[in-house]
Order: sequence, then C-alpha cells, then structure tokens
Amino acid sequence: VSKTAEKKETYGYHADKAALVKRLHRIEGQVRGVERMVGEDRYCIDILTQISAVSTALDALAFQILDSHVNHCVAGALTSGDRTEAQAKTQELLEAVQRFAKMR
Amino acid sequence: VSKTAEKKETYGYHADKAALVKRLHRIEGQVRGVERMVGEDRYCIDILTQISAVSTALDALAFQILDSHVNHCVAGALTSGDRTEAQAKTQELLEAVQRFAKMR
Amino acid sequence: VSKTAEKKETYGYHADKAALVKRLHRIEGQVRGVERMVGEDRYCIDILTQISAVSTALDALAFQILDSHVNHCVAGALTSGDRTEAQAKTQELLEAVQRFAKMR
Amino acid sequence: VSKTAEKKETYGYHADKAALVKRLHRIEGQVRGVERMVGEDRYCIDILTQISAVSTALDALAFQILDSHVNHCVAGALTSGDRTEAQAKTQELLEAVQRFAKMR
Repeated sequence: VSKTAEKKETYGYHADKAALVKRLHRIEGQVRGVERMVGEDRYCIDILTQISAVSTALDALAFQILDSHVNHCVAGALTSGDRTEAQAKTQELLEAVQRFAKMR
Repeated sequence: VSKTAEKKETYGYHADKAALVKRLHRIEGQVRGVERMVGEDRYCIDILTQISAVSTALDALAFQILDSHVNHCVAGALTSGDRTEAQAKTQELLEAVQRFAKMR
Repeated sequence: VSKTAEKKETYGYHADKAALVKRLHRIEGQVRGVERMVGEDRYCIDILTQISAVSTALDALAFQILDSHVNHCVAGALTSGDRTEAQAKTQELLEAVQRFAKMR
Repeated sequence: VSKTAEKKETYGYHADKAALVKRLHRIEGQVRGVERMVGEDRYCIDILTQISAVSTALDALAFQILDSHVNHCVAGALTSGDRTEAQAKTQELLEAVQRFAKMR
C-alpha cells in the first residue's frame, strides 16, 4: 500500500468538521419538524416561517464553508505558484458565489 | 361532542399534503447527504453545490405553500367581508414575502 | 368627452406618488455616484458596497409598491366578486413575488 | 511633479472601465424610466417588473466587478507574499459576498 493512498486530502473546513456535522444534524431535525407541521395541518404562515429559519441556517453554514474554502483552498492555490490551478480555483469560487447570491 | 370540535380546520395546502411531506422527506435526505459529505471530507465546492440544491428545493416548496396560502387563505379572508381578518392576513402575507425575498 | 374618459385610473401607490418619485430620484443619483466612482478608478470593494446600497434602496421601494398593491389592487379585486379578475391579480402577484424572491 | 503623483493606482476593472460606465449609464436611464412610470400612474406590477430588471442589471454589473476584483486584486495580494495584506483582502471579499448573497 502506497503512502499517498493512505493519506486522505482534507480541506479548509476539516478542523470544524464535528461542529459542522452537528449543525447539519440540527438542520435535518428542523426539516423533519417542517414535515411534521405539514402532517399536522399547521397554519401556512407558521410553516413558511419555519422554512425561512431552515434557509437562514443553511446559508450561514454555507458561508462558513465558503469562508474556510477561501482562506485555505483558494489562498493555497494562489500562493502555490501554479497558475492553472489558481485560475481554476478562482473560477470555481466565483461560480459558487454566483449560485448563492443568485446573481445572474 | 360538538361537530365543530371534531372537524379540524385545514389550510390551502391540505390537498397537496402527501406530496409536500414526500418532498420534505427528500429534502431531509439531501441534508443527510450533505452531512455525510462533510463527514467524508469531501471537497468544499461540491458541498456548497449540494447546499445550493437544498436551498433551491426549500424555496420551491415554500413558494408552493405561499401560492396555496394566497389562493385559499388570503383570498378567503378578503372575500369574507371581515375587514380586520382581511387586513391581518394581508399584513402577515407581506411579512412572509419580505422574509423570503430578504427585502429590507 | 365623457367623464370616465377624463378620469385616469390610479393605483394603490398613488397617495405616496410624490415621495416615491423623490426616492427614485435619490436612487438615480446613487447610480450616477457609482458611475463617477468607476470613472475615477475607485477601489472595487467600495464600488460594490455602493451598488449594494442601491440594491437595498430599490428593494425597499419595490416592497412599498408591493405592499400598497396587495392592500389596494389585490384586495379590491378579491372583494369585487369578479372571480376571473381576482384570480388574475393573485397569479400576477405570486409571479412578482417569485421574481423578487428569486425563488425558482 | 513627482512620479507617484502622476501614476494613479488602478484596479482589476480598469480595462473594462468604458463599458462599465456605459452600462451604469443605461441603468441610470432605467431608474429614470421607473420614475416616469410612477409619475404617470402606471400599473404597480409593471413598475415592479421594471424594478426587477434594474436589480438584475445591477447584480450582473456587481458580479463583473467582483470577478475582476478576485482575479486581479485578491489574486495579487495572495501571490505578493504579504500575509497581512492577503488576509485583509480575503476578509473584505467574504464580507462583500455576504452582503450580496444576503447570507446572515
């Protein structure tokens, strides 16, 4: 077994992994809560408020991953001196931002 | 036991309830998928793309609930002749829209 | 010439017309300000901050028009008893909300 | 006259400056168009559609400036070797993205 096969690459968010999984678990629970509300014929506006809360939680999580991505992966690619890699990372980042900002 | 006590009030989305629960269940699965990706140290951008997909699915679901809310509950309140109720429903609707549109 | 031909129909925002025109005039000035910043080679982030401010101002204005539209035009159509008109107004409203919320 | 006084620093968007000013000028005209619509008591939904168009145009413009900012200014700071400058630029970028994406 080669050494490279053993060592798995990790990314910027790796240090916060446990906390991120916990937050995602909570978001999963929130979605299950919305499911239950619909099942119980709860009032539309209360359901919408709950969905808004899930969206906000997802956005905050995405932003944290974006933050660590820029500070680690993008910064790493840009300082590596590998121009092709740096441009690919930059392009990828801009596309992710565009998707989140729903800029068109 | 009175008849009104037995009959539970239902809202605009009631007819689509089963389909909505199914869609929420799928969204719950998508969130669990993101959780797994983080657990497996998957690439940041792939995780962000997946979170974007969850957001879009939630938005589409919220819009469907909003649609049936406007067509049933709000329309009902406005045609009922009860001015106070009509105004409350309208105000509530505008606040929900503002939350979703993140207009400030 | 008939009297109805002379009387132009007005909409929900009519009462706030002067204030709205004033605000739009200010937004127009803000856009001109961004133009000037670009012309003077000002720093990208400062220009983006300024564009964000214009967006926020436009959103707030749109929301005010939406508010008066719902409270006057939509409410009027729904209480008029004209079902076709009521449905058309409701559909139109939902599409406008979808455009602003960028829900897809 | 000193040399530094003559040479003004320019940013990533400098090469596209003329085109950007032209686009901003068009957006300014669009805002003036909305102003005119309000003045003429035009239909609320038509005004909202026009405001949406202005918002979309502003977003696209902002995205272009963000793109050149990332490709020039941020990339420059990260490859300069100046860690403090690199971190400041990265932080600034993330805040701008957060403002546009309205992530909270």
